Amino acid sequence: MGAVIPLEDDRGRSKNAVTQLQSLVAKDMESVNEFIRERMGSEVPMIPELASHLINSGGKRLRPMLTLASAQMCNYVGHDHIKLAAAVEFMHTATLLHDDVVDESDLRRGTKTARMLWGNQASVLVGDFLLGRAFKLMVETRSLRCLEILSNAAAVIAEGEVMQLAAAKDTSTTEDAYLRVIQAKTAALFSAATEIGAVIAERNGNEAAALESYGRNLGIAFQLVDDALDYGGRAATLGKNTGDDFREGKITLPVVLAFRRGNDEERAFWQRVLQDGDRREGDLEHALGLMTRHEALTDTIARARHYGAIAIDALAIFPASPYRDALTALVEFCINRNH
Amino acid sequence: MGAVIPLEDDRGRSKNAVTQLQSLVAKDMESVNEFIRERMGSEVPMIPELASHLINSGGKRLRPMLTLASAQMCNYVGHDHIKLAAAVEFMHTATLLHDDVVDESDLRRGTKTARMLWGNQASVLVGDFLLGRAFKLMVETRSLRCLEILSNAAAVIAEGEVMQLAAAKDTSTTEDAYLRVIQAKTAALFSAATEIGAVIAERNGNEAAALESYGRNLGIAFQLVDDALDYGGRAATLGKNTGDDFREGKITLPVVLAFRRGNDEERAFWQRVLQDGDRREGDLEHALGLMTRHEALTDTIARARHYGAIAIDALAIFPASPYRDALTALVEFCINRNH
Repeated sequence: MGAVIPLEDDRGRSKNAVTQLQSLVAKDMESVNEFIRERMGSEVPMIPELASHLINSGGKRLRPMLTLASAQMCNYVGHDHIKLAAAVEFMHTATLLHDDVVDESDLRRGTKTARMLWGNQASVLVGDFLLGRAFKLMVETRSLRCLEILSNAAAVIAEGEVMQLAAAKDTSTTEDAYLRVIQAKTAALFSAATEIGAVIAERNGNEAAALESYGRNLGIAFQLVDDALDYGGRAATLGKNTGDDFREGKITLPVVLAFRRGNDEERAFWQRVLQDGDRREGDLEHALGLMTRHEALTDTIARARHYGAIAIDALAIFPASPYRDALTALVEFCINRNH
Repeated sequence: MGAVIPLEDDRGRSKNAVTQLQSLVAKDMESVNEFIRERMGSEVPMIPELASHLINSGGKRLRPMLTLASAQMCNYVGHDHIKLAAAVEFMHTATLLHDDVVDESDLRRGTKTARMLWGNQASVLVGDFLLGRAFKLMVETRSLRCLEILSNAAAVIAEGEVMQLAAAKDTSTTEDAYLRVIQAKTAALFSAATEIGAVIAERNGNEAAALESYGRNLGIAFQLVDDALDYGGRAATLGKNTGDDFREGKITLPVVLAFRRGNDEERAFWQRVLQDGDRREGDLEHALGLMTRHEALTDTIARARHYGAIAIDALAIFPASPYRDALTALVEFCINRNH
C-alpha cells in the first residue's frame, strides 16, 4: 500500500479526518477526561487551577487519542488504555508547562501561559506533580513494558529539549542535527503513545513495531508542519499566533533551509537576528521573504510529507478497519492543517 | 525500647554514627555510584556535566544509604536495591535542581548552583531528564509496589513544594501547616527510600510499615534541624552558608515559633522582613536575637528530637543488628549535626 496524500491543501477533507478519529474514540475520551479531572486534583488549590488552565485550553488531545485508537485497532479488551492515555496527556502537559518556562513564552494557543498567571515557580512544580501523577497512572496498569516505554520517553524528551537548548542559537545547525532534536523532543512521545496501544493489547511483535514507527514518523511530520506554521505555513502569511519561534530565536527547519540556501548577506541576516538576537522592525517580514524565495516553507512541508508517507506505510500490516482509515487520514490532517 | 538520644551535642559520637552506616553499605554504595555515573550519561554533553556538578558536590548520599541499609536489615538477597538507591538519588537530585530554580538560589553547599553556571532552562530540563532516568531504573527492578511508592512520592514532593510556595510569605502559618509542607516536600522521599528497602526484600507487612515510619519521622527531624541550622543552629551563630532562608523570605519553624511567641512589635518586624520582603542591614542579627529570646531554635531542635524518638521506636520490631544500630545512631547524627 503506497502513501496517498493529496498534494493540494484540502481543508474540508482534513477536518473530516480528525473528526472521524475523534468520533471513533469519543466514548473512551470521555473516560480519559474524567481521569484527567480526577487525577489532577489536590488539596493544594493552585495545582488543579494551574493544571486545568492548560489542560482545558482547547488542545486537540491528539496524543491520548493516538493511544486509544492504537489499542482499539489492536482489538484491546479492557480499560487500561484509558489510564495510559490520561498518563500520556499528563506527560505532554508537564512538558508544555516546563517548555513555557524554558522558552519564556507569554502566550500559548492565543491565551496567557500558566507561568504568566501563576509564575515560573508554580509552573515548574505543577509540571513535576503531573509527571508524578502520570507515573502513578501507568503503575496502576501493571504493564511493565508500558512503564518501560513511557519512562524511556520521559528521559528522551528532556534530552531533546536540552539538545535544542544547546543548538538553539546556531544557525548552521544541520538538518540531521535538527531532526535528532525533534525525534527526541516531539516524536518520542507520539511513538510511545501509539506503541503502548499495541503493548497493552499484548501485540508486542510486528504490531507494536508498526505503531511505534507510525507514531514516530507522524510526530516528526507534525513538528515540521508546526515549524512551518510558525512562519504562516506554505502561504507565509502571519496571524496572531505566528512568529513566536523567530522572536525566541529558535532554529527550526525553515531557518536551516533558508540559511543553507542563502548567500553571504542573507546568512549574515540570519546570524544577526537569531544568533545575536538583534532583531529590528521589518526583520520578520524580511525573513518570510527569504523563506519564500528559497522555498524553505514549502520544502519543510515536503519533508513532512515524506515522514507522513512512512507513517502510513507502517500501518499497512493491519487489516482494513475504521481505525486504520482514521489513523491514515490523521496523517493528512497533520500535514494539511493550518493551525 | 525507648529512645536514647543525648541531650547534649556530641559531635564525636554523631560522626561515628554516620561513618558506621557508611562503612556498612560501602560496597553497595560503590555500585550505586557506578550506576549513577552510567545512567546520567547522554550524548548531549551538557546533561552529564550539569548533573555531575550537583551529584559530585559532596552530598552525603543519605537517601540512597537509607534504601541500602533498609534492604540489608531485611536480609535482602539480590541487586535491585542498588538500582532503587540510584533512582532515589536521581529523584533527589532532580528535586534540588528544580528547587534552586524555584528559590532562585545562587549557592548550594557553598558552591555555585547549576542554574548559575548553566542557566535556569538547563536546570529544569536536566531535572526532568534525571526523573525520567530514575523511573527507568525503577522499572528495571520490575517491582510494581516500589514503582507505586516512588511515583506517589514524586507527586507528593511536588505537591509539598507548591504548598510551600503558596504559604511562603505568610508569617502566621501554623506549625501544623508547616509540618504538612515538610512531610510532603522532605519526609515523603525519606519514607519512600526506607520503605522500598523492605518491599524489595518482600517484607511487605510490619517491616515495610516500620521502615516507612522510620523514614518519615527521620525526614521530618532532618528538615527541622536543617531549618534551625539555617539560622546557625542552637548557638545562633552565622557561618557562610547560613541565613539563606531569611534572605529568601522562607517561613520555617524557627520563624513560626518566634512570630507566635513575639509581641506586636516583633510580629511587625517578621512581617516586614519576610512577608513584605523589606530587609535592611542588621535585620538578620535582630532576627537571631528574637529567636534566641524566644528559644525558637532550641525548641525547633526539641521538636526534631520528638520525631527522632518516634523514628527510633519504629525500628524496635527488628532484631538487633549492626544495621539497626547504625540506623538508630543516624537519627542522633541528623539531630546533632552542625552542617
